[in-house]
Amino acid sequence: MTLKIAIDAMGGDHGPQVVIPAAISALQKHADVELILVGDKSVLEPALAEHHSDEVARLQIHHASQLVAMDESPASALRTKKDSSMRVAIDLVKQGIAAASVSAGNTGALMATARFVLKTLPGIERPAIITAIPTMTGHTYVLDLGANVDSSAAHLVQFALMGSVLASIVDGKKQPSVGLLNIGSEEIKGNERVKEASRLLADSDLNYQGFVEGDGLYHGEVDVLVCDGFVGNVLLKGSEGVAHMIRHYLKQSFMRNWLTKLSGLIAGPVLKHFRRELDPRAYNGANLIGLQGIVIKSHGGADSFAFANAINIAIIEARKDLPNQISKQLETLIEGQVL
Amino acid sequence: MTLKIAIDAMGGDHGPQVVIPAAISALQKHADVELILVGDKSVLEPALAEHHSDEVARLQIHHASQLVAMDESPASALRTKKDSSMRVAIDLVKQGIAAASVSAGNTGALMATARFVLKTLPGIERPAIITAIPTMTGHTYVLDLGANVDSSAAHLVQFALMGSVLASIVDGKKQPSVGLLNIGSEEIKGNERVKEASRLLADSDLNYQGFVEGDGLYHGEVDVLVCDGFVGNVLLKGSEGVAHMIRHYLKQSFMRNWLTKLSGLIAGPVLKHFRRELDPRAYNGANLIGLQGIVIKSHGGADSFAFANAINIAIIEARKDLPNQISKQLETLIEGQVL
Repeated sequence: MTLKIAIDAMGGDHGPQVVIPAAISALQKHADVELILVGDKSVLEPALAEHHSDEVARLQIHHASQLVAMDESPASALRTKKDSSMRVAIDLVKQGIAAASVSAGNTGALMATARFVLKTLPGIERPAIITAIPTMTGHTYVLDLGANVDSSAAHLVQFALMGSVLASIVDGKKQPSVGLLNIGSEEIKGNERVKEASRLLADSDLNYQGFVEGDGLYHGEVDVLVCDGFVGNVLLKGSEGVAHMIRHYLKQSFMRNWLTKLSGLIAGPVLKHFRRELDPRAYNGANLIGLQGIVIKSHGGADSFAFANAINIAIIEARKDLPNQISKQLETLIEGQVL
Repeated sequence: MTLKIAIDAMGGDHGPQVVIPAAISALQKHADVELILVGDKSVLEPALAEHHSDEVARLQIHHASQLVAMDESPASALRTKKDSSMRVAIDLVKQGIAAASVSAGNTGALMATARFVLKTLPGIERPAIITAIPTMTGHTYVLDLGANVDSSAAHLVQFALMGSVLASIVDGKKQPSVGLLNIGSEEIKGNERVKEASRLLADSDLNYQGFVEGDGLYHGEVDVLVCDGFVGNVLLKGSEGVAHMIRHYLKQSFMRNWLTKLSGLIAGPVLKHFRRELDPRAYNGANLIGLQGIVIKSHGGADSFAFANAINIAIIEARKDLPNQISKQLETLIEGQVL
């Protein structure tokens, strides 16, 4: 059966000029997929007409008259943008027309809209944001990355479960290892919520490995790392900041004088290989997980290579029916009286 | 007047073999300083005898019979190690014999001991851990890095004040800019404590600049960044983890084959310059701030270059009489009814 994915074609910093090439690129990889571009017909039709590849036949336009601004509040988006490209793409998932949706629009509005339209899975009180982060041994799924602050122990356990199911489905791991982000070697080891969550996880059927510190994430200590959204967001953005700073200093070191520029020229292919290995674009695409439907959030500034990756994640999860898989495992946990 | 600094000569992973060369190196820079090496006389005397520089005359040994293990609990250190090198070094500060102390011993035990012996400054409920972190424009002082979890709004304001005084004293900045670490652009912007702290800081005399996100730290958005210790610890360790991972991939990229190795050889001096610019050893030395005395914590694994840097920080702060400066500014804040 053909899989249909709804794309918010107007979201993000670049809109259709990034979304359309990304959509075509994703279609080239997946012969059994159709993409629905949701947005302003008068913009999308001429933009699409410029592309002549065979894949265009599997791209359809679904008109939506409004646009959620990148700095618009979730409340405003919910109340006043009922025909926005973001909202309509999620509506298509709700109606069962699309198996997943992808948007590079603003995270707050996307989360509020997705939660309002799709609702959370039974047993999940709060959806979370999860993404794969590159490590020294591969990648680790980290959640929550900013949807929730002051998460309770029960919420952290729900996050652990959702992350575990995601890792097992997307990466085919039988029993993904799960860790709880904590601080170590200090006077007070962690807070009460983390300690309580650790006790609950130790009693669960999950492959729980205990506490992991901030650097342990990058050593690849676990497949899934669980934390409160405030902490996870700081960790993610701080990491991006460090990586950016290091690239900046590395570049500067090669640009000091003609001699260093020359060695930079010689080292060019190696530096290129290095950059590719940690290319953040290859990791673009976060899940709003815990909803009765698949919603993938792309970076707002994503280029078409990065956005295609987000579409790819949506396709993989739709094929595996991620929300239902989470539901099933959740029932087991509830029966086991862990939650 | 000669400044005396007490050094826990037995702490850290390497003990005297790192501490003694570091002490000599620090003395070479500061002609008006004497260092008191606290630890086992039977170990320190022969170790010191191997050094023949003029500075040895300004090094004295103060015997302490016990040692706090790197994995010892704070409670055990407090109860059973009253003659440890760590404890005695802090006692010397309490007695007014030393103007500051430095230890590479375990953070939890050091914080508990320092707090018990020295007590907090009037108006400060909780001491914090603060250190300078390199950014794209210089460095930023970040606190708390792990001494406190679940910090209240009032605690965050106290951290802000202490950080501001430290930055103005150590870097000579008149009105250091202060930011509160927060998450942005997500559904719920921050938690209640952060929002409340922000309101209090906006009313204070501090140069408060508002919220800063994780990546903003590395862009050098503020001179002082304030956060809860759980969050700060995760940010710091996560950052160290990313930096380590990037160095690993960079090295690996140059080690793939003989051609890449050759270009690594050519780029060698540039890569060396790059590593030096972000050398974490140059940033070794965190403050246990908020106490009635100066206690500097060195990384446990510090080498003598790094440990000398921690001693250097202790000397600078002792000369400027940091705890009293914090006290004075705290009175102003209390009079201004911010706290």
